[in-house]
Amino acid sequence: MLEKTNLTLSVSEKQFNKQMKSLEEQLQSVQQKALSLKIPVLIVFEGWSAAGKGTIISKVLHPLDPRHFNVISTRRMSEDVLYRPFLWQYAKNTPQEGKITIFDKSWHRMILPEGKSTRKFSELEKERFYYDINAFENQLVDSGMLIIKFFLHISKDEQKKRFLALEKDKDTKWRVNETDWEQNKEYEKYQLRFSRMLESSDFEASRWTIVEADDKNHATIKVYKTLISRIENEISRRAQAAPKQELNETSDNGSKVENILGKVNLVNKTVEKDEYKKRLEELQHKISYLGYKLYSKRRSVVIAYEGWDAAGKGGNIKRLTQMLDPRGYEVVPIAGPTREELAHHYLWRFWKQMPKDGHLSIFDRSWYGRVMVERIEGFCSREEWSRAYKEINDMEFHLNNHGVIIFKFWLHIDKDEQLARFTSRQNDPLKQFKITEEDWRNRDKWDKYELAVNELLQKTSSSYAPWHIIESNDKKFARLKTLEIVTTELEKQLK
Amino acid sequence: MLEKTNLTLSVSEKQFNKQMKSLEEQLQSVQQKALSLKIPVLIVFEGWSAAGKGTIISKVLHPLDPRHFNVISTRRMSEDVLYRPFLWQYAKNTPQEGKITIFDKSWHRMILPEGKSTRKFSELEKERFYYDINAFENQLVDSGMLIIKFFLHISKDEQKKRFLALEKDKDTKWRVNETDWEQNKEYEKYQLRFSRMLESSDFEASRWTIVEADDKNHATIKVYKTLISRIENEISRRAQAAPKQELNETSDNGSKVENILGKVNLVNKTVEKDEYKKRLEELQHKISYLGYKLYSKRRSVVIAYEGWDAAGKGGNIKRLTQMLDPRGYEVVPIAGPTREELAHHYLWRFWKQMPKDGHLSIFDRSWYGRVMVERIEGFCSREEWSRAYKEINDMEFHLNNHGVIIFKFWLHIDKDEQLARFTSRQNDPLKQFKITEEDWRNRDKWDKYELAVNELLQKTSSSYAPWHIIESNDKKFARLKTLEIVTTELEKQLK
Repeated sequence: MLEKTNLTLSVSEKQFNKQMKSLEEQLQSVQQKALSLKIPVLIVFEGWSAAGKGTIISKVLHPLDPRHFNVISTRRMSEDVLYRPFLWQYAKNTPQEGKITIFDKSWHRMILPEGKSTRKFSELEKERFYYDINAFENQLVDSGMLIIKFFLHISKDEQKKRFLALEKDKDTKWRVNETDWEQNKEYEKYQLRFSRMLESSDFEASRWTIVEADDKNHATIKVYKTLISRIENEISRRAQAAPKQELNETSDNGSKVENILGKVNLVNKTVEKDEYKKRLEELQHKISYLGYKLYSKRRSVVIAYEGWDAAGKGGNIKRLTQMLDPRGYEVVPIAGPTREELAHHYLWRFWKQMPKDGHLSIFDRSWYGRVMVERIEGFCSREEWSRAYKEINDMEFHLNNHGVIIFKFWLHIDKDEQLARFTSRQNDPLKQFKITEEDWRNRDKWDKYELAVNELLQKTSSSYAPWHIIESNDKKFARLKTLEIVTTELEKQLK
Repeated sequence: MLEKTNLTLSVSEKQFNKQMKSLEEQLQSVQQKALSLKIPVLIVFEGWSAAGKGTIISKVLHPLDPRHFNVISTRRMSEDVLYRPFLWQYAKNTPQEGKITIFDKSWHRMILPEGKSTRKFSELEKERFYYDINAFENQLVDSGMLIIKFFLHISKDEQKKRFLALEKDKDTKWRVNETDWEQNKEYEKYQLRFSRMLESSDFEASRWTIVEADDKNHATIKVYKTLISRIENEISRRAQAAPKQELNETSDNGSKVENILGKVNLVNKTVEKDEYKKRLEELQHKISYLGYKLYSKRRSVVIAYEGWDAAGKGGNIKRLTQMLDPRGYEVVPIAGPTREELAHHYLWRFWKQMPKDGHLSIFDRSWYGRVMVERIEGFCSREEWSRAYKEINDMEFHLNNHGVIIFKFWLHIDKDEQLARFTSRQNDPLKQFKITEEDWRNRDKWDKYELAVNELLQKTSSSYAPWHIIESNDKKFARLKTLEIVTTELEKQLK
């Protein structure tokens, strides 16, 4: 993509000054429109060393309202970032509705040619990066985000000239290092690699714009014009788009959904009290030890708990964590989304909570709410929840690629058992607050939930993130089974 | 406080096992009650090296619901923490309603005797630490938080015994270092210092409990009993407390409030266009340079913008930030609080946004909302907003002690000018979205706001965080004045 670029394009100072005033006004005006239409805009800058990213970003910001943009610079790698799946720092910084986020360098760094010192990735790893990047961008675009990607291209001579100029000044000397010079010396090789990267991440939904940047005036104007036209296009696309689908369409053709829950045998899944106490102690001892091993091997764990109301999630989680070092895990209770969360991609609030390497995050309810409660209550459109299965699989795939060990538990009880538990809660003054009108309303929708759960079990069970159905009519049995699954798998993975 | 402690207290294993079961049940039950009453509980553990903090915390957690507690361990100091006012990491981790937060070491570390290697603070600095800590704890207690502080006390012999045992085992050897041994060798000196620390931070609202910890059984039981009785007391205190004051009481006896705004002269505060452009460029150039200087000197800046609706905050902020390196500042727009924010102390959401050393945080509206909109609209009680002046002064004092440079701007226009701007916004299709029904409603309350603003200007102007009234009928004049104040002060501070 780069070889045929005409790098001699330039704009005179006079022309530049003449055009910029109007361009700044236009950009300001489209920002206002995007804000009022609540369009989230994500802008990416990549390019050669010394191609002028910093300068151009400053120029782009100039007319913008600083309350509605932010700039994410990913140059410095903190522990927080290094110890997490590579998309984490980007996913948690994606813009909310109406905001503009500019990434100075981006997730493409994983597939960019880096200096000699950088760790080399295998072909398989690289393929996975491409898959992750594609899935990530698609997901954002599907949710209504506008992604605009720029690659700033300069010639070998121009780059050399700029390096020398930087080195000459003692204040900027530090900005040029060996890796930079390597890029210049082996310019042709790097150009080929950049091209390959650009081609393979030039997705239909989020194309690259190559910016000829030997001449800064030309580059600035091209960036401005691209931004203005892309945002304007998005504004008119929205104006023409069919009105959003009815949100309350919740029924589904369940014919193709296998009745997985119906086949679960809940009978005789019990354990005696003495046996329970003994096994529990053994397993808790084991998991406590495995917790330290996770830390020393810098592996992380994500556990998602789902299940019927009153299935015993709280007690189950407690037995799992009781002997773990409290500095090593976090329990994340998931309630309805806040206003800020609603203004982001629905996975955003889960991304933020993903554990650092060496730690466990335990979710009490999870991202599966999208295809259960949100689907059933009509909190999202059919299109949105239908898309969610793939989005969820992609996120879990990405976590797994980073080495995260994933467990997903469905705590299963039957309808009679739930009724018995609801009634007993209502009669116990200490537990009354645990049961609300909403629980009873959800109970009335048992069949709808059953269908939704069957569908998600079918569509999101994968080799890297399988579902485990935990028979929970006997809470003790359920706790032991969960602990056994976790300890067995961790022992295997941490061998 | 420590010298007279009886460290021979002990509990036999048999007695211990007999009591613990019932204590665990009681603790679990008071946690549930505290949760349903939405009481936030903050527990602090301090003590001698090897006094057994870790073990006791684990034991306390044992019966608790892991979805409703978290443990904050402040042993490792990251850049994030080191480059911020010392209360920052604690303030942003205070529990929300119904949750329990346990601090394994706390803000008292600033006044604890530390090893030889630690930086020594001057008497004045120490006095400020005490003031900050007192103010911080009082603030939390006033907002309804229960603070329970434990100091684990062991004897010289016991400590030595434990150090030797730790050193004997190769897995735990690393846990004892020179500083620890120093504590043991100079035990008496340290005991005196600990005592002094405890006495001077034994506030009425948040007393210390000294736990005799030579015998672990005794220590555990004492911690349990204290927790149970303190939480129970809080529960019955709430039950007996008078019902919360009417929230809609907003009128105030304004007789003692000086009419500061009334004396502001808005006439002739204007600037010519050419003069404006020239000055603006100079000042922006200057502030851009000062931004880098802030970074290199690791000083941080907090700027709070307040002012009448349509006074021009957005445009003013834009001129201030336009030439700053976007990686060095953040603009924080403040809207109504989210559900999560409402469940915390009202300053919590601002604490979270305080800048790292070397950076600027610019707040578009701020913590002063408490004594303006929240007061006027009855979103908080009279008692709450009356208390807020001191709370705000204390927070700003603390920031200043850390070296944060604070600016507070009131952008002032008169009522006619506001009407003209509202009308012009309404007639401009591009700006219509900026004006809402609420703006008109607020305008009707002009006099109430005027009173509230006069009062806050009077009560929260301090030498370390003065208010600046910016005459803003002419926006250009206002922008220059703001920039001049900021650049002049920064030049002075960064000399």
